[in-house]
Amino acid sequence: MRPELEPFTTLLDLRTGLLEPVREAVERRLSHMAGAYLEQSEGLGDPVIYRVYGFPVPPTNANVVCSTTVIEPGTVGREYFMTKGHFHEVRDRAEVYLGLAGQGRLLLATEDGRHVVEPIRAGTVNYVPGGWAHRSVNVGDEALVFFAAYVGDAGHDYGTIEQRGFPVLLVSGERGPEVVENPRYLA
Amino acid sequence: MRPELEPFTTLLDLRTGLLEPVREAVERRLSHMAGAYLEQSEGLGDPVIYRVYGFPVPPTNANVVCSTTVIEPGTVGREYFMTKGHFHEVRDRAEVYLGLAGQGRLLLATEDGRHVVEPIRAGTVNYVPGGWAHRSVNVGDEALVFFAAYVGDAGHDYGTIEQRGFPVLLVSGERGPEVVENPRYLA
Repeated sequence: MRPELEPFTTLLDLRTGLLEPVREAVERRLSHMAGAYLEQSEGLGDPVIYRVYGFPVPPTNANVVCSTTVIEPGTVGREYFMTKGHFHEVRDRAEVYLGLAGQGRLLLATEDGRHVVEPIRAGTVNYVPGGWAHRSVNVGDEALVFFAAYVGDAGHDYGTIEQRGFPVLLVSGERGPEVVENPRYLA
Repeated sequence: MRPELEPFTTLLDLRTGLLEPVREAVERRLSHMAGAYLEQSEGLGDPVIYRVYGFPVPPTNANVVCSTTVIEPGTVGREYFMTKGHFHEVRDRAEVYLGLAGQGRLLLATEDGRHVVEPIRAGTVNYVPGGWAHRSVNVGDEALVFFAAYVGDAGHDYGTIEQRGFPVLLVSGERGPEVVENPRYLA
């Protein structure tokens, strides 16, 4: 076959997650996190919660879409800064995370309400199999940075999580992060 | 959908490439590199050229297969230690490399004889589009370590490279790595 794309190389700062050159960037502020937080966010202003830096390749099942995510440290009430979380639109598509810096948790949930919590830190490789919604949570005092790769035609379904939430929340407790039931979860 | 796989986490040493636990490991010695080197390898014994540590997931187009590769430093004549190199059996499937340690080159070639050379070092993200054969080469004095991810149904075609070779070779020159034509390349 004659290739449709040319090879390219981007530089990733393994501690900060920044790319050189920046090709695609998405910024999520608190005001973009509708329904994600149980607790009130009044008085916090509209801080950046996380940024995603992407590598634009065609969204087909021949390609691997990759990105780095940088989640700022912080809380909204007792809940940590985190990503919106999503299922893949094509449900069976998998994703892999490689942790680069910081201290985090990967929260995974199935449509029938099961959940799993995995660690994210420098050197963790998390496998997110098809069918598992995934949200990453910064439970530390520094930025949480990870690299992600998924099959290009996976797509994002944010709506299901916006409506139903995750079965559990990650909150800041007296002895560190605690996993608690989400009282607003729609089973 | 009900997921077929459970999430899992593996620990990757970002400097050495070693996994904990090791799930799959492939070791390639010089004796496995039939036809890869132009120069004579007599007197070198049978050193380990590289190892690949994998994460076993089903080889389907829903999954992302990932691995870390550790290429030892060394040369066979003037040619550096390197991987066998391959096209994907499903030609249009892409792959992404994240460099973790060492100094290397990614050699890419199309079936019609074009070639590209990209750098690999800590923080490089190399995109290998569909249709490009790829071989990684350690041009430094330390182990070259990188993380790779590809669409699970890509498969490996080593035979085409074993027969035809790459259009160019990477050799150790007086002022460092040099890209030279491969006199045995079958165009």
